[in-house]
This record gives sequence, C-alpha cells and structure tokens, in this order.
Amino acid sequence: MKKDIKHGRLTLPTELDFLEETQELLEKWGADAIRNSDGTELDETLLNLDAKVYSTYFVARGDNEFALQHLDETQQIFVRTDYHTATSTTLEINVQDGFLEEQIAPDTTHDPKKWWQVHNRTTDELVDVSDWSVDTETNIVTIKNTEPFHEYTVNVLVYMRWDPTQMYNHITNNWGDKAKEIPFDVRQPNSQEHMKKALRAWCEANPKVDVVRFTTFFYHFTLFFNDKRKEKFVDWFGYGSSVSPRALEAFEAEYGYRLYAEDFVQNGAYNTTFVPPSKKYLDYIDFQQRFVAEQAKALVEIVHEYGKEAIMFLGDNWIGTEPYGPYFKDIGLDAVVGSVGGGQTLRLISDIPHVKYTEGRFLPYFFPDTFFEGNDPTIEGIDNWITARRAIMRKPVSRIGYGGYPSLAYKFPKFVDFVANTADEFRTILTNIEGKKPHSKKTVAVLNAWGKLRSWQAFMVAHALHYKQIYSYMGILESLSGLDVDVEFISFEDIKAGIPEHIDVIINAGDAHTAFSGGAVWDDPTFVSNLRKWVYEGHGFIGVGEPSAYEKGGRFFQLADILGIDKELGYTLSVDKYFDKTLASHFITEDLKGDFNYGEQINNTYALTENVEVIKMDNENVTLSANTYGKGRGIYMMGIPYSHENTRILNRAIFYSLQEEDKFKQFLSLNIHTELNVYKEGHKVALLNNTNEVQLTTVYDGHGNAQDITLQPAEIKWGELNEQTLEITF
Amino acid sequence: MKKDIKHGRLTLPTELDFLEETQELLEKWGADAIRNSDGTELDETLLNLDAKVYSTYFVARGDNEFALQHLDETQQIFVRTDYHTATSTTLEINVQDGFLEEQIAPDTTHDPKKWWQVHNRTTDELVDVSDWSVDTETNIVTIKNTEPFHEYTVNVLVYMRWDPTQMYNHITNNWGDKAKEIPFDVRQPNSQEHMKKALRAWCEANPKVDVVRFTTFFYHFTLFFNDKRKEKFVDWFGYGSSVSPRALEAFEAEYGYRLYAEDFVQNGAYNTTFVPPSKKYLDYIDFQQRFVAEQAKALVEIVHEYGKEAIMFLGDNWIGTEPYGPYFKDIGLDAVVGSVGGGQTLRLISDIPHVKYTEGRFLPYFFPDTFFEGNDPTIEGIDNWITARRAIMRKPVSRIGYGGYPSLAYKFPKFVDFVANTADEFRTILTNIEGKKPHSKKTVAVLNAWGKLRSWQAFMVAHALHYKQIYSYMGILESLSGLDVDVEFISFEDIKAGIPEHIDVIINAGDAHTAFSGGAVWDDPTFVSNLRKWVYEGHGFIGVGEPSAYEKGGRFFQLADILGIDKELGYTLSVDKYFDKTLASHFITEDLKGDFNYGEQINNTYALTENVEVIKMDNENVTLSANTYGKGRGIYMMGIPYSHENTRILNRAIFYSLQEEDKFKQFLSLNIHTELNVYKEGHKVALLNNTNEVQLTTVYDGHGNAQDITLQPAEIKWGELNEQTLEITF
Repeated sequence: MKKDIKHGRLTLPTELDFLEETQELLEKWGADAIRNSDGTELDETLLNLDAKVYSTYFVARGDNEFALQHLDETQQIFVRTDYHTATSTTLEINVQDGFLEEQIAPDTTHDPKKWWQVHNRTTDELVDVSDWSVDTETNIVTIKNTEPFHEYTVNVLVYMRWDPTQMYNHITNNWGDKAKEIPFDVRQPNSQEHMKKALRAWCEANPKVDVVRFTTFFYHFTLFFNDKRKEKFVDWFGYGSSVSPRALEAFEAEYGYRLYAEDFVQNGAYNTTFVPPSKKYLDYIDFQQRFVAEQAKALVEIVHEYGKEAIMFLGDNWIGTEPYGPYFKDIGLDAVVGSVGGGQTLRLISDIPHVKYTEGRFLPYFFPDTFFEGNDPTIEGIDNWITARRAIMRKPVSRIGYGGYPSLAYKFPKFVDFVANTADEFRTILTNIEGKKPHSKKTVAVLNAWGKLRSWQAFMVAHALHYKQIYSYMGILESLSGLDVDVEFISFEDIKAGIPEHIDVIINAGDAHTAFSGGAVWDDPTFVSNLRKWVYEGHGFIGVGEPSAYEKGGRFFQLADILGIDKELGYTLSVDKYFDKTLASHFITEDLKGDFNYGEQINNTYALTENVEVIKMDNENVTLSANTYGKGRGIYMMGIPYSHENTRILNRAIFYSLQEEDKFKQFLSLNIHTELNVYKEGHKVALLNNTNEVQLTTVYDGHGNAQDITLQPAEIKWGELNEQTLEITF
Repeated sequence: MKKDIKHGRLTLPTELDFLEETQELLEKWGADAIRNSDGTELDETLLNLDAKVYSTYFVARGDNEFALQHLDETQQIFVRTDYHTATSTTLEINVQDGFLEEQIAPDTTHDPKKWWQVHNRTTDELVDVSDWSVDTETNIVTIKNTEPFHEYTVNVLVYMRWDPTQMYNHITNNWGDKAKEIPFDVRQPNSQEHMKKALRAWCEANPKVDVVRFTTFFYHFTLFFNDKRKEKFVDWFGYGSSVSPRALEAFEAEYGYRLYAEDFVQNGAYNTTFVPPSKKYLDYIDFQQRFVAEQAKALVEIVHEYGKEAIMFLGDNWIGTEPYGPYFKDIGLDAVVGSVGGGQTLRLISDIPHVKYTEGRFLPYFFPDTFFEGNDPTIEGIDNWITARRAIMRKPVSRIGYGGYPSLAYKFPKFVDFVANTADEFRTILTNIEGKKPHSKKTVAVLNAWGKLRSWQAFMVAHALHYKQIYSYMGILESLSGLDVDVEFISFEDIKAGIPEHIDVIINAGDAHTAFSGGAVWDDPTFVSNLRKWVYEGHGFIGVGEPSAYEKGGRFFQLADILGIDKELGYTLSVDKYFDKTLASHFITEDLKGDFNYGEQINNTYALTENVEVIKMDNENVTLSANTYGKGRGIYMMGIPYSHENTRILNRAIFYSLQEEDKFKQFLSLNIHTELNVYKEGHKVALLNNTNEVQLTTVYDGHGNAQDITLQPAEIKWGELNEQTLEITF
C-alpha cells in the first residue's frame, strides 16, 4: 500500500451495505485501514478492500454463554450504601437501595461477615460484626445496638452483572432486550482458561483481520449506575472493579496484610485520583498492574502467533494497563489507540512509550447528533483539528481515525473534503517532523501525587468530561500540550531524592488537600525546604489554585514565601492586608487584552508583602501575581482555563519565573492565536494559525529578529531555518 | 429637669466658645445632658447650663508625667515578627522590623530567654533558648543552627509606649508634637495606687461633673501599627494588650500552669474571635475579667462616693469588662454608652444587663467629612436612624447622643430639625414601649463558640467595620436585631448539657473551622446526635456558609443529613450530583423579587438527595435550600447579607424550619420594607416604614385578618391592639 502525502495513516470506520461509498472514502481520504466498532460488523466484501483490517476484541465480556455458566466468576466491586440515620437502637439497611439491580448484585456467597463492613459514620468507627446480620433473601442488613441519630453505612461486596461500557451504550441507545454482557474475571480459573482459548479460536476464525484491537483487557474503570438507570459514580482511573476475594487473598499472601472493603470505599471517595493515594492503594495498584500486564502479555503473544498486530484502546477496561506505568512495556503491544478531544488528550496518546505507533480518533463522531440536516459538522471538525494540531506539532500520533457511521459523513460533501484535506495536512506534518524532536525552550514539570503514571491525565474525572472543579486546572495541560517546552509529570516521591537537573520550572496546581495540590506531603520540612532552595537558586515555581496547601506554622500555602501569596482562612482577618494594588502592566500579561479569566474563584488569596507583584485581582482576591525568590520566582495563578490568552500567560510565566524575560522573544510568533514550532534537525519551522480566521503576526527568529507574516484561516505555514544564523525564511 | 416627648434622653457634645448656640440646640433637641469628647474641654459656662454634665475619664492613660516616671509599668503585649527564611545555618532577625517604634518597644528588662520565643515555623517547633541570643542594643535576635530554607519567627514581649486609640487619633488628625499618651498597667503597684488617687483628685476638682464616662478602664483591644504608621493588626476583642510578667506569674500561681508567648501569638492569629478558643485562652479571659471587674468596681465606688454616676464607653480600653460576661454585674456601673452603626450595634448596647440605662451614640458624627457645604448630612442621619429604629422597637436604648462638633451641625438647619424630630420620635417610642416586652413569635439562638459573652458581636473583627469575609454572616444579626423574635447567643458548651426548652430555632453560621462555625466541636458524636434529635423532634436548624463543618465520616458538614447539603471537597467529584434543579417557587422566597443575594460564594455546595428543596442555585452551587428532618427542618443559606429582602427570607426560614408556614401571617406587615411590632402589655402596635419612601402594605392581625395601610416616608404608625380579639386598629 502506498504511503505518501495522499495516502496512509488513516483508519476508516465501516458499515454494512456501504461498500462502494466506503471504497470512495478510502480513496478520497487516503485511508489505509478499516475498522469495526462496538455494534458494527465487518463483512466479507469489506475484508477484501485494499486496506488493513482492525477488529475490536473483548476479552472479558461479550460471551454471556460462558459468563452465565460461571456466575461465580463475575467481576466484583465494593460499594457503599447511602447514609442511614438510626432513630432507635436498631436499623435496617437494604444494601441494594440506590443501585441498579441489573448491574449490582450483593455477593452473599463469600461470607459477608468477612467481606462486608458496617460503619458508624458519625463516630467514624467500624461496627462489630456481632452487631449486624444479613438477610440474604432481602439483602437487608439489620444493625443492633445502634446509637440514635448516628449515621450508618454498609460496605458491600457485590457482583457486577453488566459491563459498564455495554450498559452505558445499551441504556443510552435503547438496545432493549439485547443481551446484557456480563464481565468475567480472568483471575478466576475458568475465565483464565476461557479467555485464551476464545482468543485463539477467534484468531483462527478471522484470518483476514490484520489488527486485533483490544477493547480493552480485563477490568473496567469504576462506573456504576443508580436505581433510575443513571450514572451514580464514574472514575476513569478507579481500580474498584478489579477486586475479588481471590485477588485480595493473593494480595494478602504477597504483602502480608489484608485489604478491607473500606480501603476501597473510603467513605464514598473510592480512591479517586483526587484522593492523595495511600500506601495501601499504591500497593494494590502495583499488585494489579503486574497481574494485568502479565495476562495481557499472554494475549498479545497469542495474537502475534497468528501474525496479527495487537493494539489497545485507551479506555473502558483499561485498568492496570496504564501506558505510563512501569509494567506497560512488558505487555508488548504494537500500538495504542485513543480518543482525541484536544491537545491534552492527543499528547496523552502520542507520548505513550514502548509501542510502535499510536492512533488518535478524532471528532466529530459520525453520529446523528452532529450529522443532521442543516448542521455543518465541518465546524466541529476544524475546531477539533486545530486544537489537537498544536499538540501534534510537539509529538504527533502516528495515525488518525474516525468513528461512527461513514454513511452519515458521506452525505456531507464539504465534510468529506475537509477530512481529505486534514488527512493530507496530517501526512504532510508527519513527513516533515516525524521522529524529529521539536525545539524546546524549557522543561516544565507538573508536580502531583501521581506523577508519570498519570501523564496528561491530571485533574481528570472521566476522561475529557467537563467539571466545574477541574477546568480551571485542565487549562494548564491543554496549554502545555502545544507549547514549545518539554513537559514532564513528576510525583512528590520522585523529587524527594532531589529535583532532576534538567527541570526548569515546576507547576503545582489543584484544590487544597487533593492528590494534585498534595495535602499532607507539604507537612515535610525537608521536602518543602528543598523546593525552596531549588527556586532560590534560580528555578521557577508556578502555583495554581491552592498550591502547597497544608495548614501549618501559620501558613496555608507552605510555599507562601515563594509565591508571596497565601489564603486567609479566617483566623487572621485582624491582620491588615495592604498589598491589593495591581500593577498597571506586567510582563506576564503583556499580550492580555481585557480581564484575566482565572476560572473558578478561590476565596481570600492575598499578597503577603509589598514586594509581591500583584498583577491581577478580582473580588479582593489576588488572581495572578509574581514574587522574586532569590534567583528564581514564584508565580501564583488562581486558575488558568484553556484559551489562547491564557496559554500565552502561562508561556510568559514560565520565562518570568526563571527571570529570563529577555529570552522570551526568541523563536516566537507574537500573535497569541498563532504558534511557532522549530525543528532544528530538519531545518524547518511550522507557523500555526490556531483559529479559523486570517491572522497577522510578527515572527521572531532565534536571535529575536522580527518579520511580519499573514496566515490564512487554520493555515500551517512551513518555513526554513538556517541553523547557523537561526534565521527563518518562509 | 423636664422629661416628656419634647425633653430629655439626649446627650449633646460640646465645644468651646459655642455657648449660645449650644443653649439653642439644647432646647431644640430637648437635650438634658452635655458631654466633652477626646480633645474637647468643658468650660465653666457650659458647666452651668441646665443639663447633666458627662465628662470623659481615662484611667490608664493621659498622665504621661506619671507614666514616664514608671516606664517599667507600661502596658505590654506579645508580638510576633514576620517570617524570616534562613538561607544558611545562622539567621538574624531585628524584632522591631515592621512595627511602629513609637508604639512598640522590646522588653529586655524581663529576661528574653524566659519571655520570648523563637520558632521554626516550617517544622512548627520551638527553637531551644540555647540556640539564640538577643542584642539588647540593636534588638537583633541571632539564631544559630538554623535549617536552611526553613522559616523562623520571634515572639517578643514588648512595651506598648502609645495608647492605641490616642495613637490612632493622633496620627489620623495630625496632632504633631502633642504628647503621645503612654498606657500604664494598673496591675503594677505604682499604677494601681495612682489610678485611685488620681480619680479621687479628679472628682474633687470637678464637682460640676455629674457623670464620669470611663473611656474605658485598663486594657485596650489589640491594635498595633506598622513601621509606616498604618494599622498592622486590629481585633476588637483581643486580650493581647493585657499581658505582663506579673499577670502571667499570677496566672500560673492560680491555675498551676504557665502561659507562653505562643499562647497569645498563635502563629500570628493572636487568639482572635475567629479562632476556636483554647482552654488556656478561656482560662486567661476569666482570669483577667475577674481582675478587671474588681479594679473597675473600686473606681466605680470612688465615683459613687462623690455622688456622681459612673458609666462606661463600650470600646477602646474595654478588655475584661465585656457587658455580657459573668463579672460585669459586679462592677456596679450605672450605664454603658456605645456607638450605633445599625440594628446589631444598637442591640449590642440596649441588651446589656445589670445597668440602670444605656445610651447609643448615633451617626453621623459632626465632623467635616460629612458636614461640608453641598452635602446633606440628613441623608446619613435618616438612614442610620431607620436602620437602628428597627432594633429600638425590640429593645430600646434609654438615651441617644451625638458626637463631634455641634458648631458644624448648627450650620445645617435641615439637619438640626431632623435631629429635633428624631429626638421627639425616640422619646415617643420610649413613652409607648419602655419596659414592655414586645411580642416575640419565636426564640432564635445563634450558636457559636462564644455564646452569650459575645452577644450581638459574632463575626466582628473591628466593631462595625466591613470585611469581605464577614458581611455575608453579619446580615443574620442585623436582620434579627429588628425581627419580632427573641434572640439568644449560646455556646457549644452551653448546649452540651441539653438545649434549653424555650429555644425554637438554632442558627450556626460561619466559615469552616472558625469559632463561629465551630471546627472540632463537631467531632463530638454526642453533641452532633443531640442536635439531630432536637431537630428531628420538631425544631429548626438554619446553617449559613459552612455550618457544622468538620471533615469526618465522609461528611464535611456534620449536619449534612439535617441540611440535605454538603460541600464537595474534591474527593467525590466522581459521585454524580443530580439535584440541581431549583423549585419554581418556595415559601421562603415568596417575597423575593429577582436573585437571592447570598454575598460571598462558598464553592461546591450541593444537595445530597432528591428530597432536598433546592430553592436557589448559582454557579452550580446551592445557595438556599430546605430539607425536612423528622418534624423539623434544616435550612441552608450560603450567606445572607443584610437587606429587607434577606430579613424576610430569614424570617420565613425560621417558620419554615419549624414546619409552621401556616402561622407566618399573624401579626405581620407583608411589605418587606415595613415591620410590625406588637406590645400586648400596652395594647399597642407600631408599624414601621423602614425606608424613606411611601410604602403600601397589608397588615395581618393576630388571626391573620388583613388590612391595607399606607405609610409615609420613615413613618412609624401607632395602632391599638385588642387583646381579646387580637384585632389591630390604626
């Protein structure tokens, strides 16, 4: 198959009875692969097209015949009931209440007295097992000797009778009496044997499939529904659905201590990525990651035996396969494919190590919610493309793809042309830059409890979904995804031994006490003083939201001395706070017109001394500031939702934090809606217009010499770099 | 002297060389007393007017001849230096830095090693005395063996060489080389003897003074300035300026344990009223209150010996004399006078027990900032009057007064007439209601750590000053000051033994972890469950801001079950929150037009269940809601700044929390800008127009029968109550 500017690197979704048009799209878009989706099949005629064939494969669901015969091997989870207030000395709790019965079934096979727990949440104490009993018919737990007007909950080990993704699709698309796929647990003996046999059988039966797309492996991220068939809990990272008595007994045998329901339930917080991870939870993650990697490796080897490629979808049953985790490389996958919502999610895929290639699935999906008469899907398409393209310029995915029904897209000729052009542009970009490291001005490290494991995934609740509490932080990652800096994700543990030489700037961002801000990690004077010393000696620290928040020693922000900013908790209202005059102008906001959009308000941030450069305030709060600390600086931002304006503010803040304002206008495109990427190795530069309008900009070369350039809507203009003079020619 | 509608109950400030006009004002306003102020004198001609004469008296300042001879008896305070970051293993801190040298002088007479403290604030540990030394010449503390990049502070015992109020007036009014009055400590032997002698001498020398106005007694509230002659710290309640080695040694002898500098400094929070009080601090308050009461009593007795009255100004050097404290009654004062900023501060004065009368000093002051050509001081006068009048109708002060220069007021004839009319109205009100308990529909208790001691003073930083962090709570007190309910202030301790029978509704309001919300008090299951039971059995709970906030058992608000509201801290973003649909209408907001003004935003409040009545939301936060809890209800309000609209919301919330909506329209004036007060004892009702515009309203009698009434601007309309039929006739 050809691979040039016009061909290759694109995967087309397929549809039954759409052969001719599929052929036409394949040619127009230069697609070199086709794939089926959850719910679509590949027929023989499609299989014979001149394209690689991807097929979705489910390891631990989609075989109800097997699952129904082995219901004791159904996947499990610990759930916690709602709070129940005792009004007398006995209390009954129906543990099924509030959960979707089709999904959640209490496990009374394993002894509830061993696996379940009852808590008095008012005293925060465990209720002795002798004080409660379970009626296995009614699922009612009766607690005796309750304290009136204390609140009680039950932690319940349940079977998960419905795969969450299939449940979601089933309910959303009204699949009616279509079978509800029961997920089975490959840690159990029959499932273990079955998954391998089934894969072999499938490989035998599907010789024309070139690429097995695992969707995904074994354990789903935490997702359960309520009794009204609506989502009750969703955590894209949660290990909750990977538990079983067998797993926990294996854990105990290995680690020498036992995990209890509450270690997973955590008062209803369920170890989300926002909770600073406990040692126990980190142990459990490691334990399951090793198991999952080992099992996945076995499946990948089977696929390879049949001469096929093995790729993984990043999502759904991905727990334990984290591509930035320590065991991912052992699985031996050929590629990872994932969904691209913008620059951050693009980099989440494209930065994945230890695979031969990566593939991003772009928006919009070819679904009726976008592809309806009177709507122009090109608008979303362009927006998605130029948002992700910034990130592609820093680290490209190897391939792009689309999802949904091509027959829908086919009805929109303008959109078909748009994809054709986009595909050409993508292939041009790869021709120019693939394998070449773009010029990076600085190395910026995002510091939180998770570090590398959750690269590009900080602040996420449910993949790319918007939450009021996270968008003010997400902007950091979206901005960084396309900035000409190297980005690393480091954990507090990582730098306890010392901050790596190559890091220039550290960003700590998040709400107080979360895993992202850090919580109790700041109660470590050695850690705190090492960071202070590091900044003092000439590095940058950018704190966003409630950075380094931990109330101690009269400080709330433990790095208040670096930032020059702290948060008033109410105890020191009596201390006069004078430093509320904003500067008329500042290096960091030189390109900002109008107000600084800091997102959600953090109450009562204030400047500690007159030396603090208060750049922006709102409602008597400092929203943006800088503070010189030795040879470095601390920058405070209340939040920084993604926008071109804020990307520039972050970019400038990086230089300002290093006291290197003078170096800012080297290899820079001044118009904030444009960005310049430099590839020294290829003597190339790429100037991006990140809007769909004409933009005029001034481009500075490596010595700061300026030239004015006009860019057409969404244009990418390639230029030449003279490596000697650092001059740029377009 | 006459006392009727036209005469009496009013105190006039005086001015030199203003005799004739003073005489004229005395008659016009019906004043029966004159007084001097800080900075004005009473001359012989004034003393001979037909009016009682008040004279300001300073006990512990204003006699620099004595003070300079006894500098070792100057009042003292513990202050803390700013944070200093060590960058090597030694650190020098000039303890005078950042303080006003004219006010603050380090005490090196008493051994600094005993009374000062050095802290490593990064480890939150005390530095051993062997590791630091003081240069008494330079006031520099040198610390050795410091940890690089740890922060250090010094707690310093200092002399306070300038009385804070005089300092404030001196600096504000540019008094230049006028003497700086040095406050002396009457706990010291010479000062103790001097204060009594001086008072006797003064009484002898001032036979025509009828009333000695103590301004005030011994210890000033905490107020110190910075090196730029600006306020550095102000706490109207602080006991900081009452310390001395002598006091602390007496404390230790009595209580058996020693107080250290840090017990007062508290990391810079200095035991403000927002910090949940420690046992130590409560002990110290009690210790000083007893001392102050005893000493003040001795002075009052001297005044009485001379046939004069002894009254106290509520403010300035008032520490230890708290009128709602347990020892106030022992002082034997005849009266208290204080400044009136509105209803809350009116009630703060008028509710004071154990005195013969109270006097409120009304706004505006006769100062040039209001009384200048082109301005109409009547506007501020009317506003102040109708705001305070609501509270007068519930509990009147006995007298009113004004401050400043009467010559200024005299130039504004319209204002002179306004005061004359106001004085007549005030005297009419007193004639009608004095000594008669107004009809109260409910008893509402404001619950916090301070309870009765700080009645009407919750949330205050510096008397009536506005702070962003308090106005959303202050509205509760301002609203309550004029509502037809009985108001009590109770402490957490008070109700641990049980909630008094007569209380209907409890309000807990404040920012998390403050003395007003409560902090760790909510970590007490017995306390929490008793409150729950109390509401469940048919009482009301109104939570404002972050009520009952203490993170435990998966709740942030420990009474989340009552309120139906909790605050998301970030750990449970994964829990879906569905209950964000506001009701189209609700009993509580029936009279609200437009948005609910909740003041400052509390982030991330949400409804726990579908049963919660979500009344108002903003920015995805619940700002007003109700939740049925047994026979009672919990009401959540984000904040409730004072306004007529919010007063009505609070009034309705009281009834709704008791499930007594049906009783709301009894003895009610429906227009929110009007209020009805009922005096069963006198068979009278008073209908207030709380605006300066005409208002139409519907008045409901005791059975809910309605009549329409028109009120003129600021009018108070008196009516008759038929005690049998509960009908009202105007």
